[in-house]
Amino acid sequence: MTTKFLLEESSLPTHWYNVVADLPNPPPPPLGPDGKPVTLDALAAIFPPTLIEQEVSVERWIEIPEEVREILRLWRPAPLHRAHRLEQALKTPAKIYYKNESVSPAGSHKPNTSIPQAYYNRVAGIRRLTTETGAGQWGCSLALAGQLLGLEVRVYMVKVSYQQKPYRRSMMQTWGAEVFASPTDMTNAGRQILKTQPDTPGSLGIAISEAVEEAAGRADTNYALGSVLNHVMLHQTVIGLEARKQMEMAGDYPDIVIASCGGGSNFAGLAFPFFADKAAGRQVRLLAVEPASCPTLTKGVYAYDYGDATGLTPLLKMHTLGHDFVPPGIHAGGLRYHGAAPLVSQLVQEGLVEAVAIPQLETFEAGVLFARTEGIVPAPESNHAIAATIRAARDCAHSGEPKTLLFNLSGHGHFDMAAYDRYFAGDLRDYEHPAEAIQTALSHLPKIT
Amino acid sequence: MTTKFLLEESSLPTHWYNVVADLPNPPPPPLGPDGKPVTLDALAAIFPPTLIEQEVSVERWIEIPEEVREILRLWRPAPLHRAHRLEQALKTPAKIYYKNESVSPAGSHKPNTSIPQAYYNRVAGIRRLTTETGAGQWGCSLALAGQLLGLEVRVYMVKVSYQQKPYRRSMMQTWGAEVFASPTDMTNAGRQILKTQPDTPGSLGIAISEAVEEAAGRADTNYALGSVLNHVMLHQTVIGLEARKQMEMAGDYPDIVIASCGGGSNFAGLAFPFFADKAAGRQVRLLAVEPASCPTLTKGVYAYDYGDATGLTPLLKMHTLGHDFVPPGIHAGGLRYHGAAPLVSQLVQEGLVEAVAIPQLETFEAGVLFARTEGIVPAPESNHAIAATIRAARDCAHSGEPKTLLFNLSGHGHFDMAAYDRYFAGDLRDYEHPAEAIQTALSHLPKIT
Repeated sequence: MTTKFLLEESSLPTHWYNVVADLPNPPPPPLGPDGKPVTLDALAAIFPPTLIEQEVSVERWIEIPEEVREILRLWRPAPLHRAHRLEQALKTPAKIYYKNESVSPAGSHKPNTSIPQAYYNRVAGIRRLTTETGAGQWGCSLALAGQLLGLEVRVYMVKVSYQQKPYRRSMMQTWGAEVFASPTDMTNAGRQILKTQPDTPGSLGIAISEAVEEAAGRADTNYALGSVLNHVMLHQTVIGLEARKQMEMAGDYPDIVIASCGGGSNFAGLAFPFFADKAAGRQVRLLAVEPASCPTLTKGVYAYDYGDATGLTPLLKMHTLGHDFVPPGIHAGGLRYHGAAPLVSQLVQEGLVEAVAIPQLETFEAGVLFARTEGIVPAPESNHAIAATIRAARDCAHSGEPKTLLFNLSGHGHFDMAAYDRYFAGDLRDYEHPAEAIQTALSHLPKIT
Repeated sequence: MTTKFLLEESSLPTHWYNVVADLPNPPPPPLGPDGKPVTLDALAAIFPPTLIEQEVSVERWIEIPEEVREILRLWRPAPLHRAHRLEQALKTPAKIYYKNESVSPAGSHKPNTSIPQAYYNRVAGIRRLTTETGAGQWGCSLALAGQLLGLEVRVYMVKVSYQQKPYRRSMMQTWGAEVFASPTDMTNAGRQILKTQPDTPGSLGIAISEAVEEAAGRADTNYALGSVLNHVMLHQTVIGLEARKQMEMAGDYPDIVIASCGGGSNFAGLAFPFFADKAAGRQVRLLAVEPASCPTLTKGVYAYDYGDATGLTPLLKMHTLGHDFVPPGIHAGGLRYHGAAPLVSQLVQEGLVEAVAIPQLETFEAGVLFARTEGIVPAPESNHAIAATIRAARDCAHSGEPKTLLFNLSGHGHFDMAAYDRYFAGDLRDYEHPAEAIQTALSHLPKIT
């Protein structure tokens, strides 16, 4: 009984897949504060030329530089597993497969994009990168990339996370990054907040402002983002490109491809290469799974909105709950985002990708069942994909249909055990659908003329 | 440039290698309190028949049950990596390879033996297993095994670790184990200690006493040990058996095989299959690496001593610092053991295995260099093997010899980031060789007539 499908290193993809080439309609452009499409020059203050090119490219295949591939080979190709034991526990005729992105040194799929981002910045002569991090997955991944490619990395970590999650901070420092609790007194944005709210726990919005401000103000320094943008989706497609080959090795093809969706890179990474098949006429359902407490794709609107909380970024056409919507404090920190990647949003809007929202307790129940059958303790973000997979597998048990399900195990939960503790102690709860807060935030959407 | 050597699942070993078959002399038997060899019956109170058979077997090859192999396939065969980036950082002509045992769900090599131990117990009709754990690596591995094989697991976790390392405890609970801070009031041993020392932080010795007492007193319950015993060494040989095939894939063969040594299972697992080659006349050096603060193999004596701190176990012929030697509080908790496996000790005594002791700071320096070049953050225990490998690679840089080095990356450090924190803060120190404490403990060795 084969459990894992492993690819040779020589099967590591040589090109990323750009979904834009297969979209029925061109993506709406990002807009500046004046309501006009932003110029590429405006982005050059914080991004290197090649990433800007990738952001607007319509080429189907974009070559992965050999030096990037050499680093990705430290852990890639990542295994694809058949979840025999989970199937047995569910008494389902469904066949369940998962792509295991938890094997990266940082423990998630995030280094798939931090490595090329650091690479292109170094090629452009940049010496330093800034970024923000909440729970720390992205900060760790950029720290790793900076270390491996010889760039200094400064991470603005949301203060409450800095204090509550010291081990992600230690990991960033082990990889040589500087980590500061945000807000700091090193930026105007930080000082301004500290003046009026000296005891603020910080927020992702503030941390982004600090990181962008520093990058924009220093010629040797750029900014790096871990999700949402087109080039990030692009870099993550190694996941699905490998998975497609591995499903072939298994002699199978998914009926449903399932991944969690916060900013969207985890979903895009697995699902976009299967969208290429769908665009070519193949039957395959693509399912994005979000938290019921932050239901961007299922309860948001498809509209132009800011990517950050304070309105510093260009306006992006995307599903959004409103840029000042503050999601409840669920443990899947990586899914607490008011928007979703423009490319994922567009596919949902056009009916090519489905979305479902799942409450927190069901996701932890799913994660624990997975840990107890397949062994690996998943990240709270990944538990959303697992929960949706289990729903589909149970449907198969009722209908008798032997569907093939494929989901993305985007990361492990080794740094999230406090969340599991709270789940076992009965201290976790579901958050009622925050309809009023969403309505208020949606009433603050920027007006585009 | 190939980085990883992966084996197909079909290459998972079908048999364990029993080093006893190739020893120049038969192993000295364990002795009872009366100084006579213990009877197998005496062991049957806490171990199932097949493990007792394996403990005394002289067969070279012992078949791995198919159900055990099926579970091992969740993560095995484990990858073997060529550490190109570490080599470059050291400017060494040496070729460095490492076997990556950090990929198991529990994060170390320990499940290689917890799975077969749980299996044989279940086959013998046992429903529950007890064990002790310090830092939690072994407790996690047995919890995982119990969950996957349908046995209840109770872990007595040293109280100070229970309080300081809550996340290893959470992981055990995620896998369904009961975890208690030891000493408890559930055993005579625990109650006796609590009566005289109500505020004790606990110790591995006390926790072993509790686990053994419970197992001995219940017909449905056995005890499981994570190192030291012959059957544990046997189960770990899957590491070296795979590594031998992978070195062949790499077209290479190690001049030196290097692994950390506490109880000995990590070292035995990688090195014993290469000892088989050495016994057949092949040139290969085998190097066990221990902490300078707990120098069992390099400063201990080869003598009969108790396996636990309080004298409950049979007497084992091994290198020992004395059963009442309490090692200083280094962070490599898995290497803080007064003895060493009898089989490893015998090979050291006969000059077939070399040993070296390395101070704590050098091991963390090595671990950080490894993390910054190869990506993976290693466990403090594994840092000992890395430090010895780096010493050998630097020797090659001086001599110009392009030696081939192979070490065991026995686990990751995701639950040890507090130790890295202390290292970066300058709060870690080396412990002077505790010569006086060792001398005192050695003066308490049991007298054998």
